[in-house]
Amino acid sequence: MDKAPFSSNEGKPIKCKAAICKKAGEALVIEEIQVDPPQAYEVRIKILCTSLCHSDVTFWKLDSGPLAKFPRILGHEAVGVVESIGEYVDGLKQGDVVLPVFHPYCGECRDCKSSKSNWCARFADEHLSNTRRYGMASRFRDSSGEVIHHLLYVSSFSEYTVVDIAHLVKISPEIPVDKASLLSCGVSTGVGAAWKVADVEEGSTVAIFGLGAVGLAVAEGARLRGAKQIIGVDLNSDKFELGRQFGLTDFVNPTLCGEKKISEVIREMTGGGVDYSFECVGLASLLREAFISTRTGSGKTIMLGMEKHAAPISLASFDLLKGRSVCGSLFGGLKSKVDIPILVDSYLKKELNLDSFITHELNFEEINKAFDLLEEGKSIRCILWMDK
Amino acid sequence: MDKAPFSSNEGKPIKCKAAICKKAGEALVIEEIQVDPPQAYEVRIKILCTSLCHSDVTFWKLDSGPLAKFPRILGHEAVGVVESIGEYVDGLKQGDVVLPVFHPYCGECRDCKSSKSNWCARFADEHLSNTRRYGMASRFRDSSGEVIHHLLYVSSFSEYTVVDIAHLVKISPEIPVDKASLLSCGVSTGVGAAWKVADVEEGSTVAIFGLGAVGLAVAEGARLRGAKQIIGVDLNSDKFELGRQFGLTDFVNPTLCGEKKISEVIREMTGGGVDYSFECVGLASLLREAFISTRTGSGKTIMLGMEKHAAPISLASFDLLKGRSVCGSLFGGLKSKVDIPILVDSYLKKELNLDSFITHELNFEEINKAFDLLEEGKSIRCILWMDK
Repeated sequence: MDKAPFSSNEGKPIKCKAAICKKAGEALVIEEIQVDPPQAYEVRIKILCTSLCHSDVTFWKLDSGPLAKFPRILGHEAVGVVESIGEYVDGLKQGDVVLPVFHPYCGECRDCKSSKSNWCARFADEHLSNTRRYGMASRFRDSSGEVIHHLLYVSSFSEYTVVDIAHLVKISPEIPVDKASLLSCGVSTGVGAAWKVADVEEGSTVAIFGLGAVGLAVAEGARLRGAKQIIGVDLNSDKFELGRQFGLTDFVNPTLCGEKKISEVIREMTGGGVDYSFECVGLASLLREAFISTRTGSGKTIMLGMEKHAAPISLASFDLLKGRSVCGSLFGGLKSKVDIPILVDSYLKKELNLDSFITHELNFEEINKAFDLLEEGKSIRCILWMDK
Repeated sequence: MDKAPFSSNEGKPIKCKAAICKKAGEALVIEEIQVDPPQAYEVRIKILCTSLCHSDVTFWKLDSGPLAKFPRILGHEAVGVVESIGEYVDGLKQGDVVLPVFHPYCGECRDCKSSKSNWCARFADEHLSNTRRYGMASRFRDSSGEVIHHLLYVSSFSEYTVVDIAHLVKISPEIPVDKASLLSCGVSTGVGAAWKVADVEEGSTVAIFGLGAVGLAVAEGARLRGAKQIIGVDLNSDKFELGRQFGLTDFVNPTLCGEKKISEVIREMTGGGVDYSFECVGLASLLREAFISTRTGSGKTIMLGMEKHAAPISLASFDLLKGRSVCGSLFGGLKSKVDIPILVDSYLKKELNLDSFITHELNFEEINKAFDLLEEGKSIRCILWMDK
């Protein structure tokens, strides 16, 4: 990539197009905005393509509480190229292809140095507050100079955005950018959950509740780890065909289970329960089913979805005492800078299937159509191209 | 040990004394009973000493439901010596010193062969039903020929009892039997939880909720694993002094926390939470406190206590999503035949402290006094000697 196109703006604000969410649930509006130059530890990137994740829809609809902020630039699953860098930015230069990642990795704190956690002790606790390294200041302004809020340190629904280096991963330019975009959030979360959080082993059995991109990515992760039986659970039976491409061997549609609970069906299918279950929807009631779908003695349940109603998780104590465990994770337990390059490599070696996640492609201007497709359950991932 | 004293009864019933629980909560009555000879895969043992565990009190009080059975011989923490063996009993002979253990280990099933679980797939699922290998038949009868029920495959409040080989561990006769008795249930459960379930590592931080024998044994296990900070939580501040003998470094009395929650106090003491928390009381509300006392990203909570009111466990989903986990275990995740000899060895090497758990010793005839001492919170472990 040639440095020339960017150099003229270094240190100066850039004017560009962005899709702005002005009010919860309202269609995004594409307008010209101003993007400030990066400050220390920050990088301004040009977005090449971005994909729509369910969390964008969640934040789009959020109409109250401290996390609801408008106007805002949504988007957090994308690929970009470095346009300019702030002070103290090591290891990145103009033209580098980078993935922005909502989950931070400083590489220096106790947790980043430990194999036990991907919870960067230095930055992650302020996760959803969207506090930047140097406070809450936005790098976006609208044409009248008013502040536009960021989302999850990324805000990729803009031609340019400013990202903290703790949220950027340099990747090989060999991987097609649309495939790489998937690794910025959803697919990494699912694959990582099977790989790093559950540590699924060869010959094991797996049940996945909810077959959106994250659930399908769990299947893909379990397939790569050699699971022998991968059961998908979804209300939409069409997902089974799609899921087969990611290693799904069995399918349960809860509406076709009659009087039986999903967990009973799964325990029957597996002779006592699966080794691993994954809740990818975000419903406490479903987590409970996932939990009792696992084997006594060693069954492990991983919660990936954010509970939609902030409901508590309720588990029968004796089911837990019988040696089961439940854990949660964000970003699939992956340390972004360490693990995403491994996934890129796996794709380039034709092991990891990324292609089948992409069901739609649109121009950035058609972004509202991408929201419709996801809401209607028609798309798994829709790539939005910035320059096409 | 000389074989002679036993040989005359081989294959015949034995008449001996036992403490019988005739009705829930009533004082035990010592009477003469008849103990059948062992059948295939069974061993008749002479109890040398037994100690009183909280679960005995729980079953003693249980007055309804399928687990409440009377008349019954309670007791499941003990040491015995083999009197006679049934068919197909390998590896045990008259005179061997053995520990009966409520939690089975067949050594042959998928789980016994796996390092992931101590939940013997072959026998453990019928755990509390007290189903014996060959059905529900009791090996005890009273003087009028009526059946007396067993407890948890052990029933050690009797001079003789019949135990399935899946519930017996041969131990070195070098260890004093009173110390060994503690390894039959409570102390192994606590030490095992720190060792096998949590896998506490050097330099880590630990909080223990409830400082009975199991909680103190968790401290001992954490001490042996090199934890740097071991915080005990108990309503009785006297437990701190006792706990120091097992490595306790800090103490929290919830009644002295003022407006603060226990979890807030612990998070302050540890700069963000402990690496491991253990719930040893059996209260869902306390499990929740234990859970949010752990660090974000990697905090692990282990539930050891059986919930006293069968209440479900309720956890905030976002606290889980932040990389925490919770798991339960029975018998501290230990495989009895494999791991108890390691603990015996550790005691003989003067590493594992067992002596300090024994706060009282009584003759078997004084068994009801042992119940009083435990109920009043005066004893940690009371040894009941059969022949003194």
